[in-house]
Amino acid sequence: MAARVAVVGAGPCGLAQLHAFEEARAQGADVPEIVCFEKQGDWGGLWNYTWRTGLDEYGDPVHGSMYRYLWSNGPKECLEFADYTFDEHFGKPIPSFPPREVLYDYITGRAKKNNVRQFIRFNTAVRRISHDDATRKFSVTVENREDRTTRTEEFDYVIVATGHFSTPNMPSYEGFDRFPGRILHSHDFRDAQEFAGKNLLVIGGSYSAEDIALQARKYGASSVTISYRSKPMGFSWPEGIKEVPLLDRVVGSTAHFVDGTSQPVDAIVLCTGYQHSLGFIADDLRLRTDNVLYTENLYKGIFWIDNPRMMYLGMQDQYYTFTMFDGQAWYARDYVLGRVSIPSRQDMAADIEQWRSKLAACDGPLDEIDFQAEYTADLYKEVDYPSFDIDLTREHFRTWEHHKEESITGYRDRSFSSPCTGTVAPVHHTEWWKELDDSMGTFLSDHEHS
Amino acid sequence: MAARVAVVGAGPCGLAQLHAFEEARAQGADVPEIVCFEKQGDWGGLWNYTWRTGLDEYGDPVHGSMYRYLWSNGPKECLEFADYTFDEHFGKPIPSFPPREVLYDYITGRAKKNNVRQFIRFNTAVRRISHDDATRKFSVTVENREDRTTRTEEFDYVIVATGHFSTPNMPSYEGFDRFPGRILHSHDFRDAQEFAGKNLLVIGGSYSAEDIALQARKYGASSVTISYRSKPMGFSWPEGIKEVPLLDRVVGSTAHFVDGTSQPVDAIVLCTGYQHSLGFIADDLRLRTDNVLYTENLYKGIFWIDNPRMMYLGMQDQYYTFTMFDGQAWYARDYVLGRVSIPSRQDMAADIEQWRSKLAACDGPLDEIDFQAEYTADLYKEVDYPSFDIDLTREHFRTWEHHKEESITGYRDRSFSSPCTGTVAPVHHTEWWKELDDSMGTFLSDHEHS
Repeated sequence: MAARVAVVGAGPCGLAQLHAFEEARAQGADVPEIVCFEKQGDWGGLWNYTWRTGLDEYGDPVHGSMYRYLWSNGPKECLEFADYTFDEHFGKPIPSFPPREVLYDYITGRAKKNNVRQFIRFNTAVRRISHDDATRKFSVTVENREDRTTRTEEFDYVIVATGHFSTPNMPSYEGFDRFPGRILHSHDFRDAQEFAGKNLLVIGGSYSAEDIALQARKYGASSVTISYRSKPMGFSWPEGIKEVPLLDRVVGSTAHFVDGTSQPVDAIVLCTGYQHSLGFIADDLRLRTDNVLYTENLYKGIFWIDNPRMMYLGMQDQYYTFTMFDGQAWYARDYVLGRVSIPSRQDMAADIEQWRSKLAACDGPLDEIDFQAEYTADLYKEVDYPSFDIDLTREHFRTWEHHKEESITGYRDRSFSSPCTGTVAPVHHTEWWKELDDSMGTFLSDHEHS
Repeated sequence: MAARVAVVGAGPCGLAQLHAFEEARAQGADVPEIVCFEKQGDWGGLWNYTWRTGLDEYGDPVHGSMYRYLWSNGPKECLEFADYTFDEHFGKPIPSFPPREVLYDYITGRAKKNNVRQFIRFNTAVRRISHDDATRKFSVTVENREDRTTRTEEFDYVIVATGHFSTPNMPSYEGFDRFPGRILHSHDFRDAQEFAGKNLLVIGGSYSAEDIALQARKYGASSVTISYRSKPMGFSWPEGIKEVPLLDRVVGSTAHFVDGTSQPVDAIVLCTGYQHSLGFIADDLRLRTDNVLYTENLYKGIFWIDNPRMMYLGMQDQYYTFTMFDGQAWYARDYVLGRVSIPSRQDMAADIEQWRSKLAACDGPLDEIDFQAEYTADLYKEVDYPSFDIDLTREHFRTWEHHKEESITGYRDRSFSSPCTGTVAPVHHTEWWKELDDSMGTFLSDHEHS
């Protein structure tokens, strides 16, 4: 019987995997049977926006953490598919920092072009994955959420592409149980206008805290106080946003911080990160990790060291995204197709250790960008992913970091050049800080929405 | 080996079950090994208030649907334990409509008295229940949420006491994905003060809609519009609350109803009920039902007709609550102890059919109350649950329905007599509509909180 491959999730990673196999098939490769299970009713993963929070229509945790008015927080040129450029998709150059709908259209555009939807079982949740060492088969138990039937299928390979920004990490603070306003995790943040006229407390010091603070103020929050856990982000915040030390407790609607200062607040957003939540995977196959740039136990950041036929995509923390996922998907595919080989467990462990030592020596974001660029380039070396100017993307990331330092409200107005086509992005018709309309129509038009 | 019994959940039903076994043990019965698995970190089920919404600290769906300032919406005399009265617990008579904290204290008071905490494995989630017909054993797979280890144990009996008011039923309406405010299910409603000064849209026509509309207005909502799906509740709403037909769509922040009227709204609460969500139970053991007063496939409302060693407590819709759960728990216990017998499958099916025919003939709440009183009394006939004046509780429910018709803001100020002790409840020191403090301290004091 032909080999069977299960792909879990049809977001950017899962779609990259389906695409990678289709590219090989188009070139004549003998591709095994691929079945992709997607919990949601449509593809795109986090980029498939939902208004729902908490539990979804079938009672499962909502996958989406995406909010309205989200714009890319890095240059699109740093995530451009080498085999499907922005110029190809949109038919013209577009600005460097697109809103969600535009990136969703781009990701799913490549998937449509290659007709990979046929491989996806929608509204199908994977409930259990285990491995039988005797038969060398994976048992994958899935539930059809529409008719509530459960079935178990056998596979030779499993590729987990669930993402890891869906299960909130949500600490508690004294007084939360008596706070008279909304307390939410950034996972449940949807429309910043809800907080217009409010004094918002944001807890956290990373991308979510930065972006949600800006969004909330942009859409009318009276004030935003960012309480950092380790250190302040330290940007030159616009009027109405400030950073303070960690929350100590809430008394009524007053937030008290560890430095003894206090602040009345109307709502609290916990931007405190996510958990890798993979409880549907048997203990002996399950990745357990914090959000780091190189996890333990995954060779090449992909292969489960105890059983390389169990693969994971995109489980790292990310500067690089779609292009890194492509590198991983191509590599995973080539392992399945027998084009690349996996060394002994001992050699895998040594390789992981080498990368993790290198990571440990990194000092700050610029080093980390170089680290992930090097990791990604290392994947490309073994596979036939089309080449692009990855050094240019490293340079772009550095420039972008400087732009953020210069102006946290203005960095999205800058433009970058494509590492694939050389196209220089046009400047958007409206400054991001003043642009309240995030629709694709307005973004792609040459002038401001009337 | 002695028989083993798994109880799933340590809320009112699970605690009733543990209590029932302890009562038998105290009287000399040979009680099997009982293990109760509780997902949460403490007991009390829904009555264990949490500020969390969506997913909990371990990434599982939050069990709690309880909100702040919730007061009992029926007379406490209609849910009084016959073997542990309110007078016994509080040492004095208390008013008829207590706030949450008081009922939590009462429920857990009986559990403490009987020392049932020893049987409960906290932070332990049941992930899978199946049955092996050959060995006649249930396999129960549980996860210790703290150390993330999973184990499978065998049991002879399983008693499911998870409740069914935790998984929202959440329809969608046109325009929700563009609505610029919060949209939530009543499951995620926590503090009404969040909606002070807002125009709130509440969708639904049952208890949650009624109570959340009143709460929101009581704590300062500018207006509350209740949109009903089938028919209006028709109470004499206080100024600021009105009922309108079903929502058709939302355009921007304007709600349009099917009668052509419209209304600007700031937030939307879906009080659209709950799903029986028992996906952790194998298909051939899993109850699938809507929220009805007598489900299919459960003999005596308890025993899974295809395998009576699989039992369910409290899976019905409920007028009667704690006393009905006690009746079920005593009956389930006595089946395990061999004190009551179960007839043939055919006779069970006929018995279920008889009850369901009777239910089908019910016309409105008063009939339904009689129906559930009769069902509960039928359970008591076979077991040694202490007698109480169940006819008085039926009368109380009727009176209560009339009180609600007379005044939806005033019915909680009435008092009732105990069916166990005859005690007539004192009138609370402050009218419910004006009482903003729901603490146990203030409720139990003889005078208004200063």
